[in-house]
Amino acid sequence: MFSSSPPPSGPLEKLFQYIDLHQDEFVQTLKEWVAIESNSVQPVLHFRQELSRMMAVATDKLQCLGAAVDSVDLGSQQLPNGQSLPLPPIILAELGNDPKKPTVCFYGHLDVQPAQQSDGWLTDPHTLTEVGGKLYGRGATDNKGPVLAWINAVSTFRALEQDLPVNIKFILEGMEEAGSVALEELVTKEKHRFFSSVDYIVISDNLWISRTKPALTYGTRGNSYFMVEVKCRDQDFHSGTFGGILNEPMAELIALLDSLVDSTGHILIPGIYDQVAPLTEEEKKTYETIDLDLEEYQNSSQVEKFLYGTKEEILMHLWRYPSLSIHGIEGAFDKPGTKTVIPGRVVGKFSIRLVPHMNVSVVEKQVKQHLEAVFSKRNSSNQMSVSLALGLQPWITNINDNQYLAAKAAIKTVFGIEPDMIQDGSTIPIARIFQDIIQKSVMMLPLGAVDDGEHSQNEKINRWNYIEGSKLFAAFFLELAKLHE
Amino acid sequence: MFSSSPPPSGPLEKLFQYIDLHQDEFVQTLKEWVAIESNSVQPVLHFRQELSRMMAVATDKLQCLGAAVDSVDLGSQQLPNGQSLPLPPIILAELGNDPKKPTVCFYGHLDVQPAQQSDGWLTDPHTLTEVGGKLYGRGATDNKGPVLAWINAVSTFRALEQDLPVNIKFILEGMEEAGSVALEELVTKEKHRFFSSVDYIVISDNLWISRTKPALTYGTRGNSYFMVEVKCRDQDFHSGTFGGILNEPMAELIALLDSLVDSTGHILIPGIYDQVAPLTEEEKKTYETIDLDLEEYQNSSQVEKFLYGTKEEILMHLWRYPSLSIHGIEGAFDKPGTKTVIPGRVVGKFSIRLVPHMNVSVVEKQVKQHLEAVFSKRNSSNQMSVSLALGLQPWITNINDNQYLAAKAAIKTVFGIEPDMIQDGSTIPIARIFQDIIQKSVMMLPLGAVDDGEHSQNEKINRWNYIEGSKLFAAFFLELAKLHE
Repeated sequence: MFSSSPPPSGPLEKLFQYIDLHQDEFVQTLKEWVAIESNSVQPVLHFRQELSRMMAVATDKLQCLGAAVDSVDLGSQQLPNGQSLPLPPIILAELGNDPKKPTVCFYGHLDVQPAQQSDGWLTDPHTLTEVGGKLYGRGATDNKGPVLAWINAVSTFRALEQDLPVNIKFILEGMEEAGSVALEELVTKEKHRFFSSVDYIVISDNLWISRTKPALTYGTRGNSYFMVEVKCRDQDFHSGTFGGILNEPMAELIALLDSLVDSTGHILIPGIYDQVAPLTEEEKKTYETIDLDLEEYQNSSQVEKFLYGTKEEILMHLWRYPSLSIHGIEGAFDKPGTKTVIPGRVVGKFSIRLVPHMNVSVVEKQVKQHLEAVFSKRNSSNQMSVSLALGLQPWITNINDNQYLAAKAAIKTVFGIEPDMIQDGSTIPIARIFQDIIQKSVMMLPLGAVDDGEHSQNEKINRWNYIEGSKLFAAFFLELAKLHE
Repeated sequence: MFSSSPPPSGPLEKLFQYIDLHQDEFVQTLKEWVAIESNSVQPVLHFRQELSRMMAVATDKLQCLGAAVDSVDLGSQQLPNGQSLPLPPIILAELGNDPKKPTVCFYGHLDVQPAQQSDGWLTDPHTLTEVGGKLYGRGATDNKGPVLAWINAVSTFRALEQDLPVNIKFILEGMEEAGSVALEELVTKEKHRFFSSVDYIVISDNLWISRTKPALTYGTRGNSYFMVEVKCRDQDFHSGTFGGILNEPMAELIALLDSLVDSTGHILIPGIYDQVAPLTEEEKKTYETIDLDLEEYQNSSQVEKFLYGTKEEILMHLWRYPSLSIHGIEGAFDKPGTKTVIPGRVVGKFSIRLVPHMNVSVVEKQVKQHLEAVFSKRNSSNQMSVSLALGLQPWITNINDNQYLAAKAAIKTVFGIEPDMIQDGSTIPIARIFQDIIQKSVMMLPLGAVDDGEHSQNEKINRWNYIEGSKLFAAFFLELAKLHE
């Protein structure tokens, strides 16, 4: 672990002291929140009741801080099987509305992935348990710990009767792990009311790339997911009775899929790289400073060899270049054994991760044109069709924006180090949704370490990350206010 | 329907008259046999009991003819779920052992595919129902009708107190639709006992290629079924977190599968056509005379266009050329929806139908060498392995063999026409098993028409095919004896 930097002076000193002195209380609150099994993934009434209880506990907590809380009832959800289940409310809360201060809205979620000790947990997943400075429990890092760190920061100002340097808002949901049901609608609806005064949105729902070095995330890749269908007829054929006289749909689909990407990972669709932002020397340098131990990364991934041999190439191909993955085929024989079938109709599935400044519609056109060209060369009597099943734009933000500068300064103050400026190769729609709808600056400010194991067994947050993270948010409020002076 | 040829004279005249006069009795017996739901496909005690009852009824019938019947108990079968179910016996029967006469052994099976009226049958599948000369019922053509036609032929000689011109043997099983459990072992065991005196084996378990013109089958394609695995690691990856830096197993497998066959159906594995028997002018001519209405065939197959435009090419590519079909992929995403997975380990499945004089071991070697060469060019860090999951040699026999000459002559007598000399594109292991183990001449002599619908709803045998088929077997006995005089 890093040793903290020299103790700050002035208001910060008192804040940090308070947080250090009250850290066991903060851990105790996290323990109480982890004890609520707010599982949104399994659509069962019991868990929905636990989710409602979780949101009520959070409402109480925010009200104790003096926040005005609006617990927005979302009614119920109709499941595909016809069953109806209540949805947990979304919490909209605000604390302070001084027009001279900037307003920061914190997004977080209080639902969790399922967890049972029998899944392979070393401790009860719903009893926060500290072992060697690690706080094990479901939701500890994803996302109850970071939500509470923000609340800890606010409550420290209140306890010390220090003026909050920023107006604070919260949007806390309970269905994030189940696809953020009803969130986008609510954000759209509240754009000109709750969000009208918001200047900054902070999300703390991802991880550092290192076990010890803090990070700021400024981009996530988008995704365009395609289905390509080749059909001869609806029924399958027997490969003895028809093999040799058919344009077999599987062979055609295989040829189409094989035209997409080469053995070096290069995408073969004409024009696909045209819109990719050119790499500047300045950007290139940012990858060199990032704390990634390539050997450790490779070992923990259980991959014998990556396509690239340097840290910089690896990071660029995960973050700033598109990638194409073939996920599978629907309609073919997928079970163990030796079925002698000629599938009559098959659907191939692949997706392209999108990076700035790629655009879903342009990529859709390029993919369709390419596959149609490949297919037409085959002179096939089968029918081929391509469709875009999912289109999510990449998200990137300006790292010279005020809140990034404030966060960097706060990290420097708390951790004594410049953060890794990172992106995320996967698609986190929430950042892009806020940016598109509210059209305000969005920042992803993670608190957890790379080995926190969100979604897996033995999820944890380090006590150090949780407590220093609370300090970080407090310092961030002050830094942000400074930039608005 | 064809009109029968001029009535024969001599012993045949009486035999044919008897069969015509007693046809309703023969249909009645078929009705009794169809009423027994001898389903071997569903491993349920009730059906196994019905199977045993079916074998007992057949044993009685053969004993009434004067045959010595050995009902060979096969004990029970252990299912993968641990359950144990009794197996129906295999019937070995013989009638006559005159060393001066040739001995013909008839192979047939008395089990059936499952059938329920709710599957889309117009009549109760277990109540043989005649509509417009068609006898509808499960097992009517596959294979109870042909078994009874053989028995009808024998019983006609007995009823008329005519000397049987050949020694007759039967091997009747009850597990054909479930993979002929225990048959090969029994044939091997009985090679030097029951089968030692057998000169000819006749199988009547396939169909004509026409609705009206009889056929003799002299070959079936073999099959070599391959699994090709590409593995990076056992677990899957998230395509956001790893897409762009991996040699993805799916892309590699797709490339391997795409190297197997081109858009014209031509197999690209080096050397694969080297062993294919050259096409002689004589053989070429045989395809011209075959009764296949290409347009009707295409319509009934619901295929817009075949790879070939002439009857001759179609038949040759189904029967005398190899074909390669890709069946599917195990381990990839095969469900509806948009899972963003990079499968960590995938297994592609394809098979090559084999024709004379291809050999499973040579093909195995060629396939492995080819795929290893394609894979090694990719410089991949993944592991690739190819295995042969199933290897069945093609079967072909000499159409100038005595029993083919006798069958041709008998067809000419009964139907007044030369038969279509046909092969079957699919793999029927039983012919090859008998030929390999017993090393005697095997003939496939079908009685049913192309539209009999074996294995589907509304399976039927035409009364005409059943009754003329009974005459055909009687005439065949006499013709075969003549060749041995």
